[in-house]
Amino acid sequence: MQLKLSDICRRVALAYDDGLDLTIHGVNALDAAGPSELAFAEAQTPAAEVAASRAGAIVVAHGFDGMPGRRLLSSPNPRLTFVKISELFLVPEPFTGVDPRAAIDPSALLGEGVGIGPCAVVGASASIGARTRIGPGAVIGPGVCIGADCLIGPNVSVLAQARVGDRCTLHAGTTVGGDGFGFIWAGDHHHKVPQLGTVSIEDDVEIGCNSCVDRATFGTTRIGCGTKIDNLVQVAHNVDVGEHVILVSQAGLAGSVTLGRGAMLSGQVAVTDHVRVGAGARIGGQSGVTADVDAGAVLFGTPARPLKQAFREQAALARLPELLKTVRRQEAAIASLERRLRALEGHSGPAPAAIESAD
Amino acid sequence: MQLKLSDICRRVALAYDDGLDLTIHGVNALDAAGPSELAFAEAQTPAAEVAASRAGAIVVAHGFDGMPGRRLLSSPNPRLTFVKISELFLVPEPFTGVDPRAAIDPSALLGEGVGIGPCAVVGASASIGARTRIGPGAVIGPGVCIGADCLIGPNVSVLAQARVGDRCTLHAGTTVGGDGFGFIWAGDHHHKVPQLGTVSIEDDVEIGCNSCVDRATFGTTRIGCGTKIDNLVQVAHNVDVGEHVILVSQAGLAGSVTLGRGAMLSGQVAVTDHVRVGAGARIGGQSGVTADVDAGAVLFGTPARPLKQAFREQAALARLPELLKTVRRQEAAIASLERRLRALEGHSGPAPAAIESAD
Amino acid sequence: MQLKLSDICRRVALAYDDGLDLTIHGVNALDAAGPSELAFAEAQTPAAEVAASRAGAIVVAHGFDGMPGRRLLSSPNPRLTFVKISELFLVPEPFTGVDPRAAIDPSALLGEGVGIGPCAVVGASASIGARTRIGPGAVIGPGVCIGADCLIGPNVSVLAQARVGDRCTLHAGTTVGGDGFGFIWAGDHHHKVPQLGTVSIEDDVEIGCNSCVDRATFGTTRIGCGTKIDNLVQVAHNVDVGEHVILVSQAGLAGSVTLGRGAMLSGQVAVTDHVRVGAGARIGGQSGVTADVDAGAVLFGTPARPLKQAFREQAALARLPELLKTVRRQEAAIASLERRLRALEGHSGPAPAAIESAD
Repeated sequence: MQLKLSDICRRVALAYDDGLDLTIHGVNALDAAGPSELAFAEAQTPAAEVAASRAGAIVVAHGFDGMPGRRLLSSPNPRLTFVKISELFLVPEPFTGVDPRAAIDPSALLGEGVGIGPCAVVGASASIGARTRIGPGAVIGPGVCIGADCLIGPNVSVLAQARVGDRCTLHAGTTVGGDGFGFIWAGDHHHKVPQLGTVSIEDDVEIGCNSCVDRATFGTTRIGCGTKIDNLVQVAHNVDVGEHVILVSQAGLAGSVTLGRGAMLSGQVAVTDHVRVGAGARIGGQSGVTADVDAGAVLFGTPARPLKQAFREQAALARLPELLKTVRRQEAAIASLERRLRALEGHSGPAPAAIESAD
Repeated sequence: MQLKLSDICRRVALAYDDGLDLTIHGVNALDAAGPSELAFAEAQTPAAEVAASRAGAIVVAHGFDGMPGRRLLSSPNPRLTFVKISELFLVPEPFTGVDPRAAIDPSALLGEGVGIGPCAVVGASASIGARTRIGPGAVIGPGVCIGADCLIGPNVSVLAQARVGDRCTLHAGTTVGGDGFGFIWAGDHHHKVPQLGTVSIEDDVEIGCNSCVDRATFGTTRIGCGTKIDNLVQVAHNVDVGEHVILVSQAGLAGSVTLGRGAMLSGQVAVTDHVRVGAGARIGGQSGVTADVDAGAVLFGTPARPLKQAFREQAALARLPELLKTVRRQEAAIASLERRLRALEGHSGPAPAAIESAD
Repeated sequence: MQLKLSDICRRVALAYDDGLDLTIHGVNALDAAGPSELAFAEAQTPAAEVAASRAGAIVVAHGFDGMPGRRLLSSPNPRLTFVKISELFLVPEPFTGVDPRAAIDPSALLGEGVGIGPCAVVGASASIGARTRIGPGAVIGPGVCIGADCLIGPNVSVLAQARVGDRCTLHAGTTVGGDGFGFIWAGDHHHKVPQLGTVSIEDDVEIGCNSCVDRATFGTTRIGCGTKIDNLVQVAHNVDVGEHVILVSQAGLAGSVTLGRGAMLSGQVAVTDHVRVGAGARIGGQSGVTADVDAGAVLFGTPARPLKQAFREQAALARLPELLKTVRRQEAAIASLERRLRALEGHSGPAPAAIESAD
């Protein structure tokens, strides 16, 4: 694939006044891009790194000084501009329609332009929106409703009459609508709590590979509009994930957790059941959130506490072995002072009783 | 689906003496149930929440006071009664028999009433017990033996001639019988230790989505009767999980771990290889169990230690930054006392040498 | 399966001078092996355990003393010898060729002796090397290139034109080539960063069940030659894993992490994005690596620090609640000393001002 630099600039609304119209074959990182590739630099990228790049063209921040021999394209947001240029180089998979080796129930409804790969399975009364692609081996259960312009990866399973909005992506191996994990002890065995609810995945959600979103016990497990979920993430039954939330790989949400709009959970974070995390809260990697979190809070550690407090405690902990020695030394010093003081008191007579009794 | 309230009560052995026979369309949480839904309240649920519920009928504990205008059904165990009522509303998937698009080896044995979805694969000499359902895309390897009344979800893989008991559920994407992770360093590379063993999953086991149970190196990885495993859980080779164990999401058991009957491991717990966890032990979320655990112990933290100790240490840690300051202040105070005492000793003559030398 | 002991010894180059030629049916652990099975003992295995074993033959270290009635086979490396004997008992799956129910694009290239299971899917222009086996339900995407003598498990997905070397094993449910998790905030939503790169898995790599290796944003996510990865492991976009690395179950590497040759990460370890871990470094279970790690370092904890330091801190933490009491007691003792000293100073006159002001 190749594009003229002038075309690229026109399509992302960048000024372009260079007479020589380079042919660009792709995008790459600043330090890896070659003469026919386009790269970008952040406002804070050192000028030396820009100068050292072999990239054919570089998107830079407004105000970045000109640099002889470098073809610089000025943008108010170089990273976003670069992302939009990258999109021009995405090669869409060829449309192959509905593969005859897919198993599609006759009662399923398929929108216009739907693509379904070989060995995919679409159950009774399921509906697939226009232009949605279902990967090979994916299983869309009975009654599931998937919106338009979605990508459902290979070997994905969507069950429990889940609803998936428009423009969603579910990557390979992910499961939506598995049973919630609910049992009650019945004297001699764990008795299963029937899982009767469903899952609602709103518009513009992306879920990575091999993640799990369980159906609700009753009601709905919800993934809010615009939320992005990484690989191997666990979302338990009756969780309510707000809009534009970020869940990084291997994070886990226990039952009935609520995450406010724009919350960000780093990798391997765990949230205890029924906990409410406020809008915009940010939780550091591997933290264990065991109590409600205020909107905008920044937490770290297990149990999760304010990041600054956690760092202060961590720094203090590193000094603890030394502190133990210091205190032991002080014990001896105090004992010595006590003895010497008593000796002096013997010379001088006892200290006044009124003060001594305050011990 | 709808049921008469009188029918519901009869089927779960609840007294019912209300003349007006309500039609119930489903079950729901106390605060979400509508007038045609049934809910329940725990013994400790505040009466005000019961009063505020719009539920058409509410299962309550014996002794719960009558409430005008509320239709209350009295039970010795409201939650269990409610679960049994919920089961009445489970809609069984229609039986569709063996799909012609499934790939079933001619040597496989299928019990009476077996259901197999499209694109499922059953290998040579595998056997599937009566009424067991195999989901679309599931792979049952050669020689695998699955009992009666099981549910095997979509895209599950069962390998290594594993045996699965009766009434087991394996949810979507789970793998049973993958190779154990065993290598020995052979001077210039990791040499694979052949994994020759198998897996035995006993009766009434449930395993969530995208979990992994590895085959033994030799012998058997065992999941005991009645054990319940959540999503994304790792069970390594040669692990022995006892009966009625609970493994919450993203927990991981290293090779040759033993879990006693009724042990409960919360989310993201890790257990080091060869560790033995006693019957009924409970391990808090994200803990790392690095040594054997007594039966009935309640542990938390990494490394896991008694819960009370872990909490006490955590509380103490929060006070550590302040403690560091206190001790620094004491250092100064002791030095000052020392100087002043020495000054006094100069006035009064030295303290007795015999005492002083004890420092 | 059964082998003559003399044959076994000949094939692994062990001396064998026993007249009686036992028939061996398999291998097993020392304490579980029966009279027709072969076991091994480490150099440090207590002689009593060897004596108590019922094994028909036991591989022991050179120098292990003879033991009446035990058939001992002497080896410089008993474990490696045992592993090689185990390999003799591996039953190769029967070769079944390309199943007619697999969906193979006509443009795909299949090497000699390739085996492909039912309901597997091989995309356009994909190539599969000689003797490689593709399990049932596996999906090999368009343009993917897999080497010779590989095993691709059931329901595996390989995408993004990934390259897989020779003699690699990808176990059931694993995904290779899912999109990296990259988004930038565009004022009112997370804007997806196009993921244009690929994955390169070099020779002799093994990846467990339900793990994920994401494609690079641009460029390549690399898994070095001889590296072994366990189940449920996350490898994010642009990660560079060196040769002969070990990643134990549920470990997670964030974007652009670099792992040096021979590094070993235990279970549930997390590594922050862009961190470089040196060759041969070893990271203890559940650790969180937040900064670059020197070659050969041994770290533990979150944040990861030298193992000895982490243990020292842990031991000190256990003494912290007591320390708090000690320091509180010291506060009182110092206050008492202060009062008594002041009383004495009243008797003897003030201490010299020059010293006192140093407080």
